[in-house]
Amino acid sequence: MNAVDVVITEVGPRDGLQNTKSFMPTAAKKAWISAEAAAGVPAIEVCSFVPAKLIPQFVDAEEVLAHANSLRGLTPVVLVPNFKGCERALAAGAHRVMVPISVSEAHSMSNVRKTTAQAIEEFARMADLVKAQARDRRAQLVGACSTAFGCSLQGVVAEADVVRVALALRAAGADSISLADTVGYANPEQVKRLFRKVREAIGADFPIEAHFHNTRGLGLANALAAYEVGVRNFDSTLGGLGGCPFAPGASGNVVTEDLVFMFESMGVNTGIDLGKLIEVRRTAFAPLPDAELYGHISKAGLPKGFQPWSQAA
Amino acid sequence: MNAVDVVITEVGPRDGLQNTKSFMPTAAKKAWISAEAAAGVPAIEVCSFVPAKLIPQFVDAEEVLAHANSLRGLTPVVLVPNFKGCERALAAGAHRVMVPISVSEAHSMSNVRKTTAQAIEEFARMADLVKAQARDRRAQLVGACSTAFGCSLQGVVAEADVVRVALALRAAGADSISLADTVGYANPEQVKRLFRKVREAIGADFPIEAHFHNTRGLGLANALAAYEVGVRNFDSTLGGLGGCPFAPGASGNVVTEDLVFMFESMGVNTGIDLGKLIEVRRTAFAPLPDAELYGHISKAGLPKGFQPWSQAA
Repeated sequence: MNAVDVVITEVGPRDGLQNTKSFMPTAAKKAWISAEAAAGVPAIEVCSFVPAKLIPQFVDAEEVLAHANSLRGLTPVVLVPNFKGCERALAAGAHRVMVPISVSEAHSMSNVRKTTAQAIEEFARMADLVKAQARDRRAQLVGACSTAFGCSLQGVVAEADVVRVALALRAAGADSISLADTVGYANPEQVKRLFRKVREAIGADFPIEAHFHNTRGLGLANALAAYEVGVRNFDSTLGGLGGCPFAPGASGNVVTEDLVFMFESMGVNTGIDLGKLIEVRRTAFAPLPDAELYGHISKAGLPKGFQPWSQAA
Repeated sequence: MNAVDVVITEVGPRDGLQNTKSFMPTAAKKAWISAEAAAGVPAIEVCSFVPAKLIPQFVDAEEVLAHANSLRGLTPVVLVPNFKGCERALAAGAHRVMVPISVSEAHSMSNVRKTTAQAIEEFARMADLVKAQARDRRAQLVGACSTAFGCSLQGVVAEADVVRVALALRAAGADSISLADTVGYANPEQVKRLFRKVREAIGADFPIEAHFHNTRGLGLANALAAYEVGVRNFDSTLGGLGGCPFAPGASGNVVTEDLVFMFESMGVNTGIDLGKLIEVRRTAFAPLPDAELYGHISKAGLPKGFQPWSQAA
């Protein structure tokens, strides 16, 4: 990976596709991943190792991951919901494994039928599995604190609970902690406060990542707030793929191309070619005609005289 | 006006309506203005004193302003493009007059067929007109630096030019300076830098305002950035009314209800009842069926357990 100021992880092939009705053909997934990697996207969450009977979209997880692993310079990420998924992912050659742990007990029960404590315990077993790998090919483990900014079932999530879960995940063996605004409840003030608190607890040098949704329109403002308190790793999806079905027009994840535009226009190097990225948006979703896409920069076009980081340097 | 942390000026009846195809009946305009004022919106830009043959939407400017002037607690604002418009506005009883001056020479010529210097000269004559008013009913004059963050005709706009125009407007008699991102080119880093520069030049205590468009999706992030460097006055439009015709889906102004949601969720008091405001969005545009509305919070709904400033206090 080249030196960049922020690392953007495209999570559309996982977070986006798990919300779409149609199955995206495996070849189309591979083409999408290849095209975004070619546009300079440094990391892509390519699939989820959930049982195919729960989410049929990911029946081809092994094949998609193998393809992503073959792409030079790309860091593929996979989601695993439990120990079994972790075993499958590692067997399939995963380099970076993201495990969501709901800080909200209500969400944890609803999502994986475990308490948060049980989920952390299972995370520790996954960490043992990873530690048993040969040192030179050991996977990285991301402990993601889901519903860190609030929960549509539980409502408010105590910040002390987020800190506690983050500390537990680090202690259990996480290589990185992610704070996820799973339902789009976060606001910029809260983002700054919570990231500061968690970094104070886990150590300012311990890797930390941000995962924002744009459900209530604050996605980019929240990303800006996180950037301002030192966060340098951000998830997003091309075209904001994955809108909430209950809120038409309220897009899902932060839109990758808009996030890249924001950072590049600020002089923050993402390493991503924005023109190429917008072109990927135009072509990648042809096999998914019912996908609702969001975002602004792809429609409005770049400002006249716009100099992205790469050109200005 | 009650003590609030930020003052949001609804500019939809002017900036929004000047971009819509249909004429909004005068009674509907009055009802919209009344309803937003009742929701606690402290200031509304209610019309433009341009010749009706140029923008027929504002043929009823006098009547709409008279209605707005009758509403207790509301500060009505009017736009005037030139000296004649200023005379009309003052004769009609305007309390707050906003005059846009394009920093971009190309935009100034295209918009009012004057150089920026000629426009500033005319602004000074308007200031004289205002100063001739009786002291206790003297109107406030806002000098708005249009295209301050870039221009779709000229491209880059030099920051030194913005500072120069702001200083000239203050010297000519402006009571307040506004920096306007007329075409949606601004980014948060630029917003902070330019507001800092202009405030350094005109004085940190001199009133300053921000007018952002959301054409490229950065509207709220830019508002956040401006807030962080001390700006406390923001323009926006309900439902983002006034989208650019060349960029479908790329909304026009910052969406008022989303801006209010951002600030209130951060614990920043806007004095506005968000529930009532969203209700206004539902009813105000019925007489304008071709209006394209944008925004997130009105579709996604408030977070569970959400406490706006007014409830938390």
